[in-house]
Amino acid sequence: MGFWNLFLPHQLPNHLVSSNNNNSIKISPSIYLSNREYGILCEVMGRSTLAPEACNCSAPDTGNMEVLLKHGTTEQQAQYLLPLLQGNIRSTFLMTEPDVASSDARNLETKLTKIVESDGRVRYVLNGKKWWSTGAMDPRCKVALVVCKMDYSHPSCAAEQHNAKQQRGHQTIVIVPMSHPGIKCVRALTVFGSDDAPHGHAEVSLNNIELDETAVILGEGRGFEIAQSRLGPGRIHHCMRAIGLAARCYELMLERTMQRQTFGKFLHEHGSCREMIADSRSDLEAARLLTLACADDIDQLGAKGARDKIAMIKVAVPEYTSRVVDRAVQIFGGAGVSSDFPLARALVGLRTLRIADGPDAVHKVTLAKLELRKAKKRMQSKI
Amino acid sequence: MGFWNLFLPHQLPNHLVSSNNNNSIKISPSIYLSNREYGILCEVMGRSTLAPEACNCSAPDTGNMEVLLKHGTTEQQAQYLLPLLQGNIRSTFLMTEPDVASSDARNLETKLTKIVESDGRVRYVLNGKKWWSTGAMDPRCKVALVVCKMDYSHPSCAAEQHNAKQQRGHQTIVIVPMSHPGIKCVRALTVFGSDDAPHGHAEVSLNNIELDETAVILGEGRGFEIAQSRLGPGRIHHCMRAIGLAARCYELMLERTMQRQTFGKFLHEHGSCREMIADSRSDLEAARLLTLACADDIDQLGAKGARDKIAMIKVAVPEYTSRVVDRAVQIFGGAGVSSDFPLARALVGLRTLRIADGPDAVHKVTLAKLELRKAKKRMQSKI
Amino acid sequence: MGFWNLFLPHQLPNHLVSSNNNNSIKISPSIYLSNREYGILCEVMGRSTLAPEACNCSAPDTGNMEVLLKHGTTEQQAQYLLPLLQGNIRSTFLMTEPDVASSDARNLETKLTKIVESDGRVRYVLNGKKWWSTGAMDPRCKVALVVCKMDYSHPSCAAEQHNAKQQRGHQTIVIVPMSHPGIKCVRALTVFGSDDAPHGHAEVSLNNIELDETAVILGEGRGFEIAQSRLGPGRIHHCMRAIGLAARCYELMLERTMQRQTFGKFLHEHGSCREMIADSRSDLEAARLLTLACADDIDQLGAKGARDKIAMIKVAVPEYTSRVVDRAVQIFGGAGVSSDFPLARALVGLRTLRIADGPDAVHKVTLAKLELRKAKKRMQSKI
Amino acid sequence: MGFWNLFLPHQLPNHLVSSNNNNSIKISPSIYLSNREYGILCEVMGRSTLAPEACNCSAPDTGNMEVLLKHGTTEQQAQYLLPLLQGNIRSTFLMTEPDVASSDARNLETKLTKIVESDGRVRYVLNGKKWWSTGAMDPRCKVALVVCKMDYSHPSCAAEQHNAKQQRGHQTIVIVPMSHPGIKCVRALTVFGSDDAPHGHAEVSLNNIELDETAVILGEGRGFEIAQSRLGPGRIHHCMRAIGLAARCYELMLERTMQRQTFGKFLHEHGSCREMIADSRSDLEAARLLTLACADDIDQLGAKGARDKIAMIKVAVPEYTSRVVDRAVQIFGGAGVSSDFPLARALVGLRTLRIADGPDAVHKVTLAKLELRKAKKRMQSKI
Repeated sequence: MGFWNLFLPHQLPNHLVSSNNNNSIKISPSIYLSNREYGILCEVMGRSTLAPEACNCSAPDTGNMEVLLKHGTTEQQAQYLLPLLQGNIRSTFLMTEPDVASSDARNLETKLTKIVESDGRVRYVLNGKKWWSTGAMDPRCKVALVVCKMDYSHPSCAAEQHNAKQQRGHQTIVIVPMSHPGIKCVRALTVFGSDDAPHGHAEVSLNNIELDETAVILGEGRGFEIAQSRLGPGRIHHCMRAIGLAARCYELMLERTMQRQTFGKFLHEHGSCREMIADSRSDLEAARLLTLACADDIDQLGAKGARDKIAMIKVAVPEYTSRVVDRAVQIFGGAGVSSDFPLARALVGLRTLRIADGPDAVHKVTLAKLELRKAKKRMQSKI
Repeated sequence: MGFWNLFLPHQLPNHLVSSNNNNSIKISPSIYLSNREYGILCEVMGRSTLAPEACNCSAPDTGNMEVLLKHGTTEQQAQYLLPLLQGNIRSTFLMTEPDVASSDARNLETKLTKIVESDGRVRYVLNGKKWWSTGAMDPRCKVALVVCKMDYSHPSCAAEQHNAKQQRGHQTIVIVPMSHPGIKCVRALTVFGSDDAPHGHAEVSLNNIELDETAVILGEGRGFEIAQSRLGPGRIHHCMRAIGLAARCYELMLERTMQRQTFGKFLHEHGSCREMIADSRSDLEAARLLTLACADDIDQLGAKGARDKIAMIKVAVPEYTSRVVDRAVQIFGGAGVSSDFPLARALVGLRTLRIADGPDAVHKVTLAKLELRKAKKRMQSKI
Repeated sequence: MGFWNLFLPHQLPNHLVSSNNNNSIKISPSIYLSNREYGILCEVMGRSTLAPEACNCSAPDTGNMEVLLKHGTTEQQAQYLLPLLQGNIRSTFLMTEPDVASSDARNLETKLTKIVESDGRVRYVLNGKKWWSTGAMDPRCKVALVVCKMDYSHPSCAAEQHNAKQQRGHQTIVIVPMSHPGIKCVRALTVFGSDDAPHGHAEVSLNNIELDETAVILGEGRGFEIAQSRLGPGRIHHCMRAIGLAARCYELMLERTMQRQTFGKFLHEHGSCREMIADSRSDLEAARLLTLACADDIDQLGAKGARDKIAMIKVAVPEYTSRVVDRAVQIFGGAGVSSDFPLARALVGLRTLRIADGPDAVHKVTLAKLELRKAKKRMQSKI
Repeated sequence: MGFWNLFLPHQLPNHLVSSNNNNSIKISPSIYLSNREYGILCEVMGRSTLAPEACNCSAPDTGNMEVLLKHGTTEQQAQYLLPLLQGNIRSTFLMTEPDVASSDARNLETKLTKIVESDGRVRYVLNGKKWWSTGAMDPRCKVALVVCKMDYSHPSCAAEQHNAKQQRGHQTIVIVPMSHPGIKCVRALTVFGSDDAPHGHAEVSLNNIELDETAVILGEGRGFEIAQSRLGPGRIHHCMRAIGLAARCYELMLERTMQRQTFGKFLHEHGSCREMIADSRSDLEAARLLTLACADDIDQLGAKGARDKIAMIKVAVPEYTSRVVDRAVQIFGGAGVSSDFPLARALVGLRTLRIADGPDAVHKVTLAKLELRKAKKRMQSKI
C-alpha cells in the first residue's frame, strides 16, 4: 500500500533501486518525509505492536538501515541494506555490555584486534560480550552491527599504537553476519519478566570472529561519529512511538472511567479521577510538543544543532508518558497489571526507556553542559 | 517608540482614533499581532517588572480594555477606553470576594439591585465586598469593572423575577468610577508578606452605589459571557510573562553556578546542580511550547475551540515555572530568599498564579470534562 | 527450629494442639509476638522470596488462619486450620472480581443463594467469577475462603428478604474445598508479564457449588466484619515485607555504586547518585517508622483504633518503597530490569501493592473521613 | 509558671544558680527533659509565634546558651549566659556570609587576626561581613557569637603558622558584645518580602574589632567542634517547631473544608480535597516519627551516633511539612497567600528552612557518605 520504509529521509542510490528484484515491494516510499512528518506517523504506529514492523519501520532496523545508507560502501549496501529495505531480513545493534557501565561508552570492552599481515593485508579478530541485543534471537535476523574498541596491541600495529594515543575515541563499528559461528546468543533476557519474543533481547558472545576490511563501516575509530548520527532521528521515533502508546492507554483509561462505578458514581465522576485525566492530557501534550519541536530542530539545524532538544526528549518523554500510563494502570486496578490490556506492558516498556540508549543522568549532563556553554557566551558578551 | 498597546488584536474604532488628543502617543500599534506573536512579546516583557506598564500592556488593564473594545458602547469607550489606551489612567477588575469560595463564580454575593421607576427609568444599587482587587489602590486607577449578581427582589421587577428563574447565570458586569464615594479601599492585602505597591491588591467595599443603565456592559446577566471572552488571551499573557520571569531566574541561576564554589568545585561542576539545570531547561521549554500551542489554537479556532489548552496552561505553566524558580532559589541559598535578586518575589508570584483566576482544581475539572466529552463521541462512533 | 507460625497472636485452642499429629512440627510458637515484634520479623522475611513460606507465614494463609482461629467453629478449625498450621496444605482468599470495580466491596456479584427446605434444613448455592486469587493454582492449595453476597430471592426466604432491606451489608464468607467440582481455575493471570508460579494468581469460576451451613463462617451477612478484622495485622505484614524487600534492593544499589565506574569515577562519587542514596535511606526510614507506629497502635488500641494509620501505611509504604526500588533499578541500568537481580520483580510487585487490597484512592478517603470527624469534634468543643 | 528554659538538658552550674538575682524567674526548670520530651514540647510551641520566646526557648538563643553552658568559662557564663537564662537579653549567631557559598564552611572569610605582643599578651582583630544574622537587630540583643577563621599571618605568630598547616580546621568562635562600635547592622534582609521584625535578619559588618583571649570560646581552631555539638538538638527543635506550625495549618485547612462550598458541595466532599487531607496527615505523621526517632538516637547514642538521622530530618521535615502547608494554601485560595492566616508566612518560612543551616544538597551528601561507609563494612564482612 505504499506504507513502507517511510523513515527514509531521501532518495536511495540507484544501484539499490535497480537491483530490487522484489516485484511486490517498492523499496523507496513515494514521498520523503521530514522528521516532523515521520514523527507524527511514529505516534500512530506506536499505538500498535504490529504497525512498525508492518511498515518496515521497526527498531533497530531503521537505525541500522540509516547507518548503512549514510556510511556503507556499495558492497555493504548491496549485501545488507537491500534485503533490509525489502523486509527479507532483520538486524540487530550490539552496543551494551554486561560487565561494565555502558552508559559511559568509553567503558566498552569488546575488542577488535587488528593484525597487518606481511603482505600488507589487514585482518581483524573480534572478541567480547554484549547484552540487550534486541532482535538478535529473531530467526529472520541475519546481520549485527557491533560497536567495539580498537586493539592495536599486535606488534604489526606500531604506527596505529602511536596515533591512537593522541586520539580521543577508539570505537569502531563492524558488520558481522549472524551466520558466523563465533557469534552466539547465550540466553534470552527478560524485561520485568517478559521475554518480548519473538524479537527478544539477547546476551551475545563474540568469540574470535575473523573479519577483513569489508566488515568495517566508515573506517577504524569512527564508531562514535556513526553512533551519534544514528541518534537524533532515532530518538524522535522512539519518543513518538512512546507517545502513541501512552495516548492509547489514556484513551482506554477514559473509556474505563465511563464503564465502571464505585460508591454510586461512575469513576469519571470522582474528583480525583478527573484530576488524573486532566494531568494525563497535559503530560501527553507536553511530551508531543517537545518531541515535535525537536524534530523541527533536526529538520532545520541538523542533529548537531538539535542536541539540546534531543537530550531533553530522551529524558522527558519517558517520564511524562510513564505518568500517564501509571495513572491508567491505577484506574484499571487488577486488570491494569494483567495482560488483558496493553497497560502493564506499556508501563514497564516506558520504564525501560529511561535506561535504554543511556540513562537519564547521562543525557541531563549533556543538556546541562550545552546550557552552561550558552550561558558562558552570554556572560562574556555582556562584559 | 511604537511599543504601545501591542495587545490590541485588531483596528480600533474610528471614533477613538480621531479623538486621541495625545500627540506623543499613537494609541493603535502599527501592526496587529496574533496571539502567538503577542505571546512571544509577553515572555520578553515578563522578564522585567517595568516592561508591561512601559508598553501599556499590564494586567488588569489589557483585559479591561479588551472588554470595553469588544462589548462597550461608544460612550463607554470614549469615557474609559480612550484614556486607558492613552495610558492616562489605570483600571481594576473586581471579582473575587472574601466571604465565599469565589472559585465557583455562582457563589459571588455582590448584589446589583434593579429598580424600575414609575416613569420606566431604570436605576441600580450596587452593594458588596471584594478583595484581591489588583491595582485599585494605584492613585492613577480611575475605573473599576465589577462582577455582580442581579437582584430582582424589588417589587418593580416582577417580570425579571420570573425570567431569572429560567436562566442559568445572573451575573452582570458594571462600570464604577473610582471617584464614586460608595467605593472604598478598606485595606491593602499582602501576598506572602509583600504589598506589591504601588499597584497593590485591595479589599474593597461597595456601599449603596447608585448606577444607571449606562454603567452596564453588554446587558444584564451577560457577565459570564464577558468574563469568558476575557479569559483566553489573558491566560496567554499571564503564562508567557510567567515564563519570561522564570527564564530570567534560570539565567541568573546558570550564572551563579559559574561564580560560586563549594567543596573545591564550581557549583555547576556538581552533578546534582547539573540535574537542576537540565530539568529546568526542559520545564521552561515544555511550558513555552504548551502556551504557544494554545495561542495557535486561539488564533485558529477562537477562544472556545482552545478551551482545553487554555485550561491546561493555566495549571501547567505555574507548576513548571515554579519548579524552575524553586531550583534557582535553592542554588542561590540565602540570597535566593532575599530581595537582592528577583527570585524570591518570582517564586511567591508564581505560587499565587495557582490560585488567581481560579485554582488548579477548577481548571482540571474543565479539562477533564472536555476530554470525557470527546472520548464519549469516539466511543459512540465505534459502535 | 521454632520459627513457625510466628504470626499467631495468642494461644491456640486445646483441641488443635492436642490433635496435632505431626511430630516434627510444633504448631504453636514458643512465644506470642506483638504486632510490632512480628512486624520486625516480617521485614526480615520480606528480604527473601522463600522465607515467609519456610516459616509458614505467607499470604494469604496467615490471614485465612487468623479468620479461622478467630471466627471458625471447632469443626472448621479441625478440618482446615489444623492442616494449615501444620503446613500440610495451603489456601486462597477469593474476593476481587473481573466484571466490577471491586474497590467498592458493595459491587461484588458472586451470589450465595439461600434455600430453606421444607424440613427446615438450609442449603446454599454459590455462583460467580473471581480473579487475582493468589495461590489458587498451587497444587497444595486445598481450601478457598470466598467473599459473596447473600441472595434471598428464593421464595423460601421471605423473612430474610424483609430483613435484608434494612441491613447495610449482605456479604458472607464461605469455605469451599478446592476439590469441589464447581470451582475451577480458568486461567493464570500475569502481573506485569510474570505468572508468579508456583503460587500464581488465578481467574476462578464458581459454578453451582452446593454448600450447607457448615461452610459459612460466623454467619450470614457477617463477611464485612470478618474482612475488616483480617485487615489490620495483614497490612503490617504486607508493609513490613515490602520494606524488607526494598531494603535489600537498597543494599544492592549501594554495593553496585561501589563496583561500577563511569566518566572516571565510581558511581557513588557522582553527586546525583549520592542524592539517590540519601533520599532512599530517608524513604525507607519513614516507611518503617510509620508501619511500626501503626503496629503499636494495633497492639494498644486494637485494629479499630488504628484505622487511620492502617489506611496511611497502605498508601504510603508502597509509594515510599517503590521510589527506593525505582532508584535502584535506574542505577543498575539494564541489569536492573532483567531477572539477574530481584529489582525488576520488586518494582512491579510494589506497584501492584498500590492496587491489591483496594486502590490508594479508597484508603485516602477512609483516612480523610476519620480526620474530618476528629476535626469536627475539635471545632464543636471550641464553641 | 515553670515553663522556662525547658531546653536545658541538665543541671546548671552552681555559680549561675546562686547569682540569679531575678526573684520572679527560676532559671533552671524543675525537671530536665530528654531530647524526645523537649521535642514534643517544641511541636506545641511551634504552633505559635509567641510561645518559644514566652518560654525563653527561641532560636538562636537556645543554641547559644547551650554553647556557653557546655564550653564557656565561668566568666563568660556569668557575663552572658546568666542574663540570657534570665531572659534579660537576647543573642545572635553570626555564621553565613554574603560573598561566599557558606554551605561549605571552609569558604568563610571573616578573619580573626592574632597578634602576640612582646610581653606575651595576646590580642585579636576581627574583620568580616555576615548576613542572615537572625535577631541581631532586636534592641534586646546584647551579644553575638561569631564564627571566624584564624589568620596567623602576623609576624608574631610564626609557631601558629607552622601548626596551622597541619590542621584541618581553622575556625574559631568568639564572643562580641553588640555594644562594640566595630559591629554594625548594615541593613535588614527580607525573607520572601517579610522583614520578620522585631527579631529580623541583619547584614552585619565587623570592622577592626579588638578582642582579647577572654572572647574566645573553648580555644582557637575549635569552632567546627562547637558548631557541630550545637547542631543535633537544634535540629530537633527546628524540625518539631516546623511540624507544629504545619499541624496548625493542617487543622485550619480541615476547618476551612467544612466551612466553604463550591459547586454545590462542601470542599471536604470533593474527592481531590480528601486526597489532600489524607496526604497531609501522612506527611505530618512521617515527619514527626522521623524527628522523634532522631531525638531517641541523640538521647541514646549522642549527637555523633545520630548523625544519619540528623541529616535526614534536616532534609525531610521541611519537604514534608512544606507539602502540607502548600496544600492548605491552595485550599484557602486568596486568603491562603494573605496575612489573614498564618499559612503564607508558614510556607515561606518552611521553604527557607531548606536553605538555613546548610542547603539540602550538603546534608544529603553527609547522609550518603555515612550510608556508603556502613555498606562498605557490610561488604567487607561478607568476604
